Amino acid sequence: MSSLIRKASANLRAIRQTRPLVHNITNFVVMNSTANALLACGASPVMAHAENEVEEMAALAGALVLNIGTLTDVWVAAMLKAGRVATRLGKPIILDPVGAGATALRTRAAKEILARTRVGVIRGNASEILSLAGENSATKGVDATRSVDDAAQAAMLLARELNVTLAVTGVTDLVTDGRRVARIDGGHALMPLVTGMGCTASALTGAFHAVDPDPFSAAASALAFLGVAGEMAGQNADGPGTFQVRLLDALHALSPEEFELRCRIHEDEN
Amino acid sequence: MSSLIRKASANLRAIRQTRPLVHNITNFVVMNSTANALLACGASPVMAHAENEVEEMAALAGALVLNIGTLTDVWVAAMLKAGRVATRLGKPIILDPVGAGATALRTRAAKEILARTRVGVIRGNASEILSLAGENSATKGVDATRSVDDAAQAAMLLARELNVTLAVTGVTDLVTDGRRVARIDGGHALMPLVTGMGCTASALTGAFHAVDPDPFSAAASALAFLGVAGEMAGQNADGPGTFQVRLLDALHALSPEEFELRCRIHEDEN
Amino acid sequence: MSSLIRKASANLRAIRQTRPLVHNITNFVVMNSTANALLACGASPVMAHAENEVEEMAALAGALVLNIGTLTDVWVAAMLKAGRVATRLGKPIILDPVGAGATALRTRAAKEILARTRVGVIRGNASEILSLAGENSATKGVDATRSVDDAAQAAMLLARELNVTLAVTGVTDLVTDGRRVARIDGGHALMPLVTGMGCTASALTGAFHAVDPDPFSAAASALAFLGVAGEMAGQNADGPGTFQVRLLDALHALSPEEFELRCRIHEDEN
Repeated sequence: MSSLIRKASANLRAIRQTRPLVHNITNFVVMNSTANALLACGASPVMAHAENEVEEMAALAGALVLNIGTLTDVWVAAMLKAGRVATRLGKPIILDPVGAGATALRTRAAKEILARTRVGVIRGNASEILSLAGENSATKGVDATRSVDDAAQAAMLLARELNVTLAVTGVTDLVTDGRRVARIDGGHALMPLVTGMGCTASALTGAFHAVDPDPFSAAASALAFLGVAGEMAGQNADGPGTFQVRLLDALHALSPEEFELRCRIHEDEN
Repeated sequence: MSSLIRKASANLRAIRQTRPLVHNITNFVVMNSTANALLACGASPVMAHAENEVEEMAALAGALVLNIGTLTDVWVAAMLKAGRVATRLGKPIILDPVGAGATALRTRAAKEILARTRVGVIRGNASEILSLAGENSATKGVDATRSVDDAAQAAMLLARELNVTLAVTGVTDLVTDGRRVARIDGGHALMPLVTGMGCTASALTGAFHAVDPDPFSAAASALAFLGVAGEMAGQNADGPGTFQVRLLDALHALSPEEFELRCRIHEDEN
Repeated sequence: MSSLIRKASANLRAIRQTRPLVHNITNFVVMNSTANALLACGASPVMAHAENEVEEMAALAGALVLNIGTLTDVWVAAMLKAGRVATRLGKPIILDPVGAGATALRTRAAKEILARTRVGVIRGNASEILSLAGENSATKGVDATRSVDDAAQAAMLLARELNVTLAVTGVTDLVTDGRRVARIDGGHALMPLVTGMGCTASALTGAFHAVDPDPFSAAASALAFLGVAGEMAGQNADGPGTFQVRLLDALHALSPEEFELRCRIHEDEN
């Protein structure tokens, strides 16, 4: 069994035991659903975005998740403040560049966060992530319009260029720190029909990175965990409504032992 | 079979095939639930409200939904900006005047949006919509306090006065462009016990209007679609919790063919 | 049977009959879930936070619920405005000091609301509530870190000092107005794994206080109601996802008669 799979299982065990506080500055659409996903997984979520509060909160937390959906300028300022504290204290930062490439505000905000804080993991779909390279990527809202495979080589190069770990989600997820590459299978066809599934992946990456200092294994194990829970939730789901409910149940029910058995992370040989 | 019912079914088929992007500037209560309803139906939702982003987003979208719940002045400004772009580009605009008539801010904002953008459909309950006529309507929050029947004649007159299509929801829904009148049956007694059902109707009207340039048939087919899905969801629902879950399942499961068979739009003879 | 239990049942009956309007200025995470809980219970929720609207809305409502999660300064200003109107009109005010003690902004805002409006009930966990006494309480986000039993004596003293009713939730809930003390059992082990359960308790307290002028019996009956509904929801729940859905069903299904039979309020002898 790969060491990444053992690491993934150990990370889940650590979350259940230590209940890390994950500070989210995130979009209005998913605040409730990501808080519930974090709680179901075993972590402690907190949402706080006031400029005169985020520094204290970021200092209390085990990880900081910055998600740029439903963005405005004051939220960018709060993200930068929180990010600077997390950077100074060496706390993991996860960036979810929702809609980067779709509007100038989103692309600019994502790039500014990358430039001014030490982001450990960027979790997005292929076109969001490629937009950070300055490519002309005509993204359509927050949909993935490029395949993970097309993006694999670009992702490795981009991870090195940006000096971050990239977690590119799609039918098969791809995680790379520019040196190592992991592919993760799992999930369910109903997932793209539920809003904020990508945001949930980013929030869970925050929980896993809070207990695992290696952004590569943290991101791979978070995506694998969501993938297995998604498979469990999809069994007998009648549609996107029941799927959401069962996903929360599965995030809670999945034990480290069962996760290890079902985890589908494949690390590429170098 | 009425041509409106065939149109309704064709509209649903078009949504499933083209997945129109629906740009929502909407209230905090329903952002998650309306995004999920749009996804379940087959459309692509995006929520964006920053003044320095809404023009780009409105230009990308197939329809713009403006919903004035949880309103503040900066949101009104963003709605007007997005609305002017959508007007200039000929994109359908749907206005949901949540709570108009209850407070001065809401009534004034709804009227300003109507005056300064080209709204295609107003979707609200009877007292919200009548408040736009300058009548003294003592609405109690967002509840419907007048019957659809009382409002029918007033609605036709008001639709002509405002030069919009009115979609007045209640036990029986009424849609009129001032010339044609359609009544839609369906839905379930649990719907008023779920927050944001009206907002969902407005968001779905955005999806249908994105594929159907006629605001009258677009609104009638959207309300009929939600009505049939509500009937399906209500079967065996144990309460408002299970109802919500099954509604998302039904919005996803309902095929254009079954929708055509169950669709209950009745167009009044002229 | 205790008079508090008869009062609790009568309060629920009054909510179902009069559908009181509850004005919430609350956090983004729970707006949807608390609106749904209020609707399921039989009340009419409205969410409104604009500074130029809250005074009108507070005047229309039967109770005002101020919840300081996801707070910023402009929201504090809106809460104070609404609170002053409610105070002047003698409308019940419920304060939920989410995260007080965790950051200076939260603690300061809660204290300012207490000083400048007439709050009837503070509903929080032990560390949030104790932080209002100026104690050095190192709370960790919004988690309860002190037991209800440790807090009981402090709560009575603090209730007198602040001249409010305190509703301290935990495994056993404690309600005191500084003179009377009630303990409430009920609920389910899954409740802490669902975001915003405390916020739901506060919102329901608003509904009960809207029909019951005594803050002590209003708060005790609201917590007992949520406790019984939680027990019902927990039966056969597969996890935190199904629990949430069934909780809304139970809040709707629970009749005043069954509530009276299952209600577990124990008033301490003086």
